[in-house]
Amino acid sequence: MSTYHPFNNEEAIAYVKEIPNFFSQESNLVCREIGDGNLNLVFHISDQDTAKSIIVKQALPYAKVVGESWPLSLDRARIEREALQIQHQLSHGHVPIVYAYDEELALTVMEDLSDHVIMRQGLLNGEQYPLFAEHIGEFLANTLFYTSDLALNPVDKKEQSKKFINPDLCKITEDLIFEDPYHISDNNNYPVTIEDEAQSLRDNLDLHLEVALLREKFLTQSQALLHGDLHTGSIFVTQTSTKVIDPEFAYYGPMGFDIGAVIANLILNYVAQPGWNDSELAVQEKEAQLLLTVGNVWNKFESSFRALWNKDVQDLMARTPGYQDLYIARVLQDTVGFAGCKIIRRIVGLAHVADIDTIVSEELKETAQRKALAIGKQLILNHRHISSIEELLRIVQDTNPTSRQGATT
Amino acid sequence: MSTYHPFNNEEAIAYVKEIPNFFSQESNLVCREIGDGNLNLVFHISDQDTAKSIIVKQALPYAKVVGESWPLSLDRARIEREALQIQHQLSHGHVPIVYAYDEELALTVMEDLSDHVIMRQGLLNGEQYPLFAEHIGEFLANTLFYTSDLALNPVDKKEQSKKFINPDLCKITEDLIFEDPYHISDNNNYPVTIEDEAQSLRDNLDLHLEVALLREKFLTQSQALLHGDLHTGSIFVTQTSTKVIDPEFAYYGPMGFDIGAVIANLILNYVAQPGWNDSELAVQEKEAQLLLTVGNVWNKFESSFRALWNKDVQDLMARTPGYQDLYIARVLQDTVGFAGCKIIRRIVGLAHVADIDTIVSEELKETAQRKALAIGKQLILNHRHISSIEELLRIVQDTNPTSRQGATT
Repeated sequence: MSTYHPFNNEEAIAYVKEIPNFFSQESNLVCREIGDGNLNLVFHISDQDTAKSIIVKQALPYAKVVGESWPLSLDRARIEREALQIQHQLSHGHVPIVYAYDEELALTVMEDLSDHVIMRQGLLNGEQYPLFAEHIGEFLANTLFYTSDLALNPVDKKEQSKKFINPDLCKITEDLIFEDPYHISDNNNYPVTIEDEAQSLRDNLDLHLEVALLREKFLTQSQALLHGDLHTGSIFVTQTSTKVIDPEFAYYGPMGFDIGAVIANLILNYVAQPGWNDSELAVQEKEAQLLLTVGNVWNKFESSFRALWNKDVQDLMARTPGYQDLYIARVLQDTVGFAGCKIIRRIVGLAHVADIDTIVSEELKETAQRKALAIGKQLILNHRHISSIEELLRIVQDTNPTSRQGATT
Repeated sequence: MSTYHPFNNEEAIAYVKEIPNFFSQESNLVCREIGDGNLNLVFHISDQDTAKSIIVKQALPYAKVVGESWPLSLDRARIEREALQIQHQLSHGHVPIVYAYDEELALTVMEDLSDHVIMRQGLLNGEQYPLFAEHIGEFLANTLFYTSDLALNPVDKKEQSKKFINPDLCKITEDLIFEDPYHISDNNNYPVTIEDEAQSLRDNLDLHLEVALLREKFLTQSQALLHGDLHTGSIFVTQTSTKVIDPEFAYYGPMGFDIGAVIANLILNYVAQPGWNDSELAVQEKEAQLLLTVGNVWNKFESSFRALWNKDVQDLMARTPGYQDLYIARVLQDTVGFAGCKIIRRIVGLAHVADIDTIVSEELKETAQRKALAIGKQLILNHRHISSIEELLRIVQDTNPTSRQGATT
């Protein structure tokens, strides 16, 4: 049973019946495979009589993206599961519970969150999540602080970082975020209407320099255990609950990469608003509210992180006056830069976001794409000089899409 | 035979007789244990008839320093041996050849360098090594460039960095270099005559801030495979040859830590010169020559590193104009900061250098200690603003020992 093979529904049901104190052998279970089939199988198993339910997630040994198939290490299932367990413990429940796992089968059994909605979809439905910024700010502060050298003994931190060396999944990020958008690449994916913008990304050497510095940080800075792919599609929400899922890209990297991912995806939703609202007033309200959320995410992260530091910092030298301010100032700069990179890759790179791609009006879609790229570039170009979250908000508010040049030449 | 136990001379002889194509079973071998007994056994085995010789180095499961015994992982023997093999291959022979090893026995058999002298001793004997700067600059450029993300595929680099996660040995550095000198610690070791200086190291919070930043880099920046302990006691020299030994502290860290170690130990020898020369003229000559060597080490490293980059850089984004300059500028700043930390720890920390400790005149010794601390502090305090090696040389030349204050109050 334990030799790796992709499960079918019956095997998933049989497997979860063995988990102590959940279902019983007599439970009347039904199973649906609900994964997108790109990287993983996801089985939703529920008891017809009690409505009790559970999720079985199994890694596939390849990634299917746009028809291509890349081999991917099954060890990512272990990495994802260990990250879930650590983040669950550190974040006070902002991560699903792991009930069981099997490393050979690359399989994890976890809490079902079907009463939640994927945040990206919730935002597209026009929903607001008043506790989101607070929850995600706390999640970020707790998971990043307590896995860093600030809180861990350096020996323990090194042993932990060894478990999260994640070459295959990091390579995807390194290629898709920090390289492809700035060069001709088969992985790129954008409509011909914004070829002028794509060309300008390839030609802008000032931009390349800043991206090279951010790429270097991603490659070398072993600062904290990251989620590694913290977009709004990896976050389940309700009005009162926020749950972070899918940390298969987890590795030890720069804190700003996770924070920047959240902010980038809020900004991608921000630039899409004209495509999703009928009135200018509604657009302005949504935009204002999204900017407020961006600010609150950072501010909540910062205040929580400072509180944890003041309470639990273990590193004697890190108690030096002024060091905390300097540390957080650099995390903010990283956050801004990585947010910019994340925005750009979602417009011209391989994988896009529904916030923009499903805008019905081609004109509004193109305007949103151009605005996203303009903001992304400004964030990257300015990231080393940003000293407050207000500066980031000002860039987002004041940057307008560049007009179409060269597309007809 | 392969269960770990410390070897005696007879076992060492029996072991090397089994190595193919070196000695034979009939060889007339003699063995001397020549290690300092702190961390390792070192057996020197030579053939009485042919004068052919070899070294057997075996790790002990503890470190004995100043009477104390710390448990230490035997895995460091594997780390040292793998680092020797990689550095040998990359540095064109500036590292001894490994002939055999046994991981269970924590044992490595390598080239005997008895025709060389330990550089620290050579310098104390008044020798000059005209090729040293060129050799060590090349060693640094080759080993650091080719183990970094600049030259390695990021997947291979991550697999390699995993093998060199070295928590025990890194902890020694983290404690002895980046923490103890700045706090009251049983590990500190300095004469009561410089208590005023030691106190000022503990009180100077501007200094602590810069040390905290350098400590953070040491803890988190996985830039290249370092030697990790590259002082003049880890370098064997002749007039024509330079060999780097003992990389048991090897790990993926910031390049400037290795370069800074070489420079720091040259500066420690520089400040000691008045204690080793009879005339002011001789002192001045030695000082000038040591400063020239420091400059040449950096310049040779920089020119070689740039040449390797221009020839073999693999990272597409790293080819961005301006990135190489920015990269090297940051390596220089790190070098200056780490050199400062290394100088300070050798005066007030646990392990000292013979250059200073064996000066006969107590007065000249104390002056050298004070001058070293003054230079170390200036290097650390200024490291983030240094933009040329000449600035470092100017600090070394212009910084005089602080006068004794408070020692009598």
